[in-house]
Amino acid sequence: MNYKLTMAYDGTEYHGWQRQKNGITVQEVMENALFRMFGKQTDVTGCSRTDAGVHAKEYVCSFKGETTIPTDKIPTVLNTLLPDDIRAYKCCEVPDDFNARFCTLKKAYEYKILNAPVCDPNLRRNVWHYPIKLDFEEMKKAARILEGKHDFAAFCAAGSMVKSTVRNLMELSLKKEGNIITIRAEGDGFLYNMVRILAGTLVYVGNGKLTKENVKEYLEKKDRRLMGITAPPQGLMLVEVTYGKD
Amino acid sequence: MNYKLTMAYDGTEYHGWQRQKNGITVQEVMENALFRMFGKQTDVTGCSRTDAGVHAKEYVCSFKGETTIPTDKIPTVLNTLLPDDIRAYKCCEVPDDFNARFCTLKKAYEYKILNAPVCDPNLRRNVWHYPIKLDFEEMKKAARILEGKHDFAAFCAAGSMVKSTVRNLMELSLKKEGNIITIRAEGDGFLYNMVRILAGTLVYVGNGKLTKENVKEYLEKKDRRLMGITAPPQGLMLVEVTYGKD
Repeated sequence: MNYKLTMAYDGTEYHGWQRQKNGITVQEVMENALFRMFGKQTDVTGCSRTDAGVHAKEYVCSFKGETTIPTDKIPTVLNTLLPDDIRAYKCCEVPDDFNARFCTLKKAYEYKILNAPVCDPNLRRNVWHYPIKLDFEEMKKAARILEGKHDFAAFCAAGSMVKSTVRNLMELSLKKEGNIITIRAEGDGFLYNMVRILAGTLVYVGNGKLTKENVKEYLEKKDRRLMGITAPPQGLMLVEVTYGKD
Repeated sequence: MNYKLTMAYDGTEYHGWQRQKNGITVQEVMENALFRMFGKQTDVTGCSRTDAGVHAKEYVCSFKGETTIPTDKIPTVLNTLLPDDIRAYKCCEVPDDFNARFCTLKKAYEYKILNAPVCDPNLRRNVWHYPIKLDFEEMKKAARILEGKHDFAAFCAAGSMVKSTVRNLMELSLKKEGNIITIRAEGDGFLYNMVRILAGTLVYVGNGKLTKENVKEYLEKKDRRLMGITAPPQGLMLVEVTYGKD
């Protein structure tokens, strides 16, 4: 049976999603839980290879296995086997060719910036604390330039080996509540570090290091070095993953 | 000089505010930072003796000392000496008789309940995850009964040695955003564990173990055992402390 599982995690303690040699990852912990549930090694495919320290409010993974546990009880069983920074919400059976990574139609991320002189200790694991006053209106204007289908090569970290750097960024919106700026990015796919570079670039517009005209020009130049910094991981959260009918 | 300092902390890793033998407390960490700043042992008085695991978004403490550091720079200096789960925001000079504990006019706490089948790992340090569906409207009605000046003996943990258990609960309100219920309690003072027992009692009304009529009756009986459980600490946050003019 092929399963689709919806879950969430606090990425603070993990070296990202993808299994690696140098540190504990969400994928590894998930596969260990599945090993205990199915009684055999089970590979899990995730919808996104989130970086170390990045969180997920809604994450989807898929895996194959055979069990007598009713499908709707799988999250309950997994939650007894998982640490409390990873939770399984919902499980359903999907066709054999469903793959959590390759079947996504769109994904949405939120990036939170706390724009205040001093950090709030109760938010520190989920925001980028940025103490210098940001020009929110200019950031919104720059975001509008980036929305839509573009070659986002300038927003792709070095070392990525993708065939095409063209992506459709359906939404890049900003809202402000108190001193928290939330950037929402929704797209058909994202390049390596793309949302964090988008956030870092919008912050550079907010602090005056870049103008919205620069952003337009540099997007066309496709040069990563011209854009803002890669914003730190803890502000980023995967919030929504959309598939066609499963 | 007598100083009043506004600060905040994530209480997850602390055994509460008050210095004790068995574990690290916020007061101890604060006094260690003040020792390094003033160059001598400095006692700090806090506005509330929060329990282990309870947080503060706005906390006020006072201490006496002599330094050439300009008063408005004291938070910046302290933040270099404090761990990142404690932050100092604002410091001002106050008359010698100002005492952060005894001069409070009112305090406001918020208690957050995540009422959903599975906990959200990114909120787990700041909510009470309560999986059984709660009747929000009944909880609001019960809260209205508790508002005002009453003898809150039924909401005071055993072992407390206060002269009077009469308190004025100026506000006990509830709001619901998505699956998060926030209880706000504002009063001139709170008994030991009072807000957590209020939260536990409102949850007992929400799950049907108590009716609002029971709450009214048991409040008058002044018997702690009749009320709901003491809600877990991590849902509680001190959010506001008010003084007369300093």
